[in-house]
Amino acid sequence: MVKIGSTVLMNPVLIVADNLQITNPVIAGAVDALDAKPVRSLVRKMIDCGAEAIDINSGPLSRDAETRMTFLVECVRSETNLPVLIDTTNPKAMKAGLDRAGGRVILNGFSLEPQKLSAILPLAVSAGVEIVGYLLYPNGHVPPDGDERMSVALELYETCMAQGLLAHQLIIDPIVAPLLWGDGNRQNTEILAVLKRLPDLLGHEVSTIAGLSNLTTGRKTGRETTVIETGFAGMLAGTGLTMALVNVFHTQTVELLKACKAITKPGIFSWEAS
Amino acid sequence: MVKIGSTVLMNPVLIVADNLQITNPVIAGAVDALDAKPVRSLVRKMIDCGAEAIDINSGPLSRDAETRMTFLVECVRSETNLPVLIDTTNPKAMKAGLDRAGGRVILNGFSLEPQKLSAILPLAVSAGVEIVGYLLYPNGHVPPDGDERMSVALELYETCMAQGLLAHQLIIDPIVAPLLWGDGNRQNTEILAVLKRLPDLLGHEVSTIAGLSNLTTGRKTGRETTVIETGFAGMLAGTGLTMALVNVFHTQTVELLKACKAITKPGIFSWEAS
Repeated sequence: MVKIGSTVLMNPVLIVADNLQITNPVIAGAVDALDAKPVRSLVRKMIDCGAEAIDINSGPLSRDAETRMTFLVECVRSETNLPVLIDTTNPKAMKAGLDRAGGRVILNGFSLEPQKLSAILPLAVSAGVEIVGYLLYPNGHVPPDGDERMSVALELYETCMAQGLLAHQLIIDPIVAPLLWGDGNRQNTEILAVLKRLPDLLGHEVSTIAGLSNLTTGRKTGRETTVIETGFAGMLAGTGLTMALVNVFHTQTVELLKACKAITKPGIFSWEAS
Repeated sequence: MVKIGSTVLMNPVLIVADNLQITNPVIAGAVDALDAKPVRSLVRKMIDCGAEAIDINSGPLSRDAETRMTFLVECVRSETNLPVLIDTTNPKAMKAGLDRAGGRVILNGFSLEPQKLSAILPLAVSAGVEIVGYLLYPNGHVPPDGDERMSVALELYETCMAQGLLAHQLIIDPIVAPLLWGDGNRQNTEILAVLKRLPDLLGHEVSTIAGLSNLTTGRKTGRETTVIETGFAGMLAGTGLTMALVNVFHTQTVELLKACKAITKPGIFSWEAS
């Protein structure tokens, strides 16, 4: 018998909300004032719209990093026990968020950049939590094609193993290319191939995450971006993507991802969560 | 450098309309009367709705098979030069359609069933045209899982090569499972894995086709079926599916497939056809 191998075991994609961002002026103001109300209100709205995990994107937090990240995590945790992603480049903020969060915590994230390897990756190793690894060069640049992303993935994986991270703790982000890039179409097509090929490259199931909002960066929001984002969401889900980072206020994208989940979840088809 | 291999070369999915069916009473009446008008009108409507190829599903045509298939093909060809799929189990009708069609013709299709191997497959070999191969057992039954589909795919491929078909002439249909089947979710999840694995199994790019309408067979048409079909269309496109057989009057499904095409076609992103 010909075995189709481990890719059969496809977990329905997890919907991770990207809406809690310091770039939102309401959230920036709330963080400055340590006013929980607007943050908690946003978190409730995200959950109502289908969030199954919450990305806490605090930015680098140059001032009062630990206090502010702790505040954000407490706001989220006072509303939900859903998984949280601590999304910052600041190691102190990352550590503070990790210490406070409880439940399932994912560090978001690191790459082959030296300061990330020295200050972020060890946090995941010592706490035994999952961490997102971006397929970026050591200088932080985006690899130009699929082959280069595969090389980076292998190096990232080997680095993680050498540092003591367990294979299942690594969640690979292939870096979705904006449509605006001249070669965005080619890169995104190759990203689909990378996502399909990672299990062969690393020899086991690989957790993956992709940021859908990247796709339409710099484009006016409208009917076109909605349809494009929805289409790419489906394609990513078809590759076996583990987590989709998405604006959960885009109802069509969330609805489509829920359909993909309903089709691939174990058991008899229904819209109910498995 | 790690090569991600041939899967990078992903052709944007072709939208094949499944609307021209003898089970449509208007079409059945037109075929009985050899009245071209309703058929041509339907074909124009299919093209307006985004059809990029036309499946001519005549059924087995127990009476006047050759006359009737020739009539149907002439109706289509008087409206369009798009690729046509001659979709019948009747070898005489198949031959008549093939002889009359011109342009790109695809026979739809055959399987390991003995009567298909003896009477349908040779038509494709001698005419040098493409043919759809269904992943079915020799008794016509649907294999129960992905591994069995892979075994059947290998046997189908080897049979084709032994009969003199060229690899690029074979288009594999993994047989989408209806959601209504108790194990439909599992089967469709495994079908996504099969579509991803076929190039590895056969050692080269493999053309594939999937019938989306199978998914919602037996369910009332409505908002739920629309969303589900749309989600699975995206997932299938994400695996690198070559052709989607679809009801082109389902505007959301067609729109989603067009988005998938726009994201993966060569060149700079635009909604225009490449």
